[in-house]
Amino acid sequence: MQSLQEKASAWSGVDQADAFAIDEFNLFEKLGLQSFINLSTNFYTRVYDDEEEWFRSMFANSKKEDAIQNQYEFFVQRMGGPPLYSQRKGHPALIGRHRPFPVTHEAAERWLQHMQNAIDESVDIDQDSKVKMMNFFRHTAFFLVAGNELKNQNQNQNQNNQVACKHAANKPAEEE
Amino acid sequence: MQSLQEKASAWSGVDQADAFAIDEFNLFEKLGLQSFINLSTNFYTRVYDDEEEWFRSMFANSKKEDAIQNQYEFFVQRMGGPPLYSQRKGHPALIGRHRPFPVTHEAAERWLQHMQNAIDESVDIDQDSKVKMMNFFRHTAFFLVAGNELKNQNQNQNQNNQVACKHAANKPAEEE
Repeated sequence: MQSLQEKASAWSGVDQADAFAIDEFNLFEKLGLQSFINLSTNFYTRVYDDEEEWFRSMFANSKKEDAIQNQYEFFVQRMGGPPLYSQRKGHPALIGRHRPFPVTHEAAERWLQHMQNAIDESVDIDQDSKVKMMNFFRHTAFFLVAGNELKNQNQNQNQNNQVACKHAANKPAEEE
Repeated sequence: MQSLQEKASAWSGVDQADAFAIDEFNLFEKLGLQSFINLSTNFYTRVYDDEEEWFRSMFANSKKEDAIQNQYEFFVQRMGGPPLYSQRKGHPALIGRHRPFPVTHEAAERWLQHMQNAIDESVDIDQDSKVKMMNFFRHTAFFLVAGNELKNQNQNQNQNNQVACKHAANKPAEEE
């Protein structure tokens, strides 16, 4: 069976080394806190205004300002800055915390399109950092698609049970 | 509903601030790579020799040397050192990667007892660091118990479906 990270690389087209090239130097020290706040604010402004209801609705249970803070605190922590996210919320646990959301291939691509647009508009982030960050985001988005499929294996199991159940329930009636 | 980290704090008795006191200074720089390798080697020697088959068998599908490497690379990365784990395996994704294992309260306590014994035997780690690390381990172990319960919600759903299924299958027979 392919591992999570093998699936992430295959689906994203970004190999492990390129995905984690964000660690080659300290992006937080290079870019500063405000760049991350600006990026996440731009990103979530796009997400919360998305014309596609199926995508926008995944975020409907969170306040926009909370979504922004969760995201930039994670980015800061992961890209060499202080562990703001863990101090407030604990382990990132990316797959566990995305469990409530249907992270499909289509959802990953739409998330990435909004992030690409937000990155393109950023005046705080140099070109080389933009490339490294997008590779990280792309690999990570599909890592979460792989994580989502683990969950769906359980749900399929549920559905199979329900189908089996229907058959079992119908069977005696059919035999009569 | 209690969040993952609220459950982790309640069950472990370690609050968020104490759990992440490992971030107050750079433990990797203080202790060095070999301390982490020694700790994980001691820990997994205990685990693979555990007299309790139910616990030991959870690790039976991994080679001991792989388990040691996965663990010390994660500890090094999380405690201020180079991102060895992500370079080789991607995101830690603690809950997602523990998904195959039944991380019960009992399993968490047994894991922690082996780790306490390994920490107690460590001659490379000063007392203050030992306390910080055990608080982090204890909180994290119960964070994973909380993550495991998410998975069990699905399995319970499966079992409920199967019970409902049995009733549905039996019902027509009972009515005959």
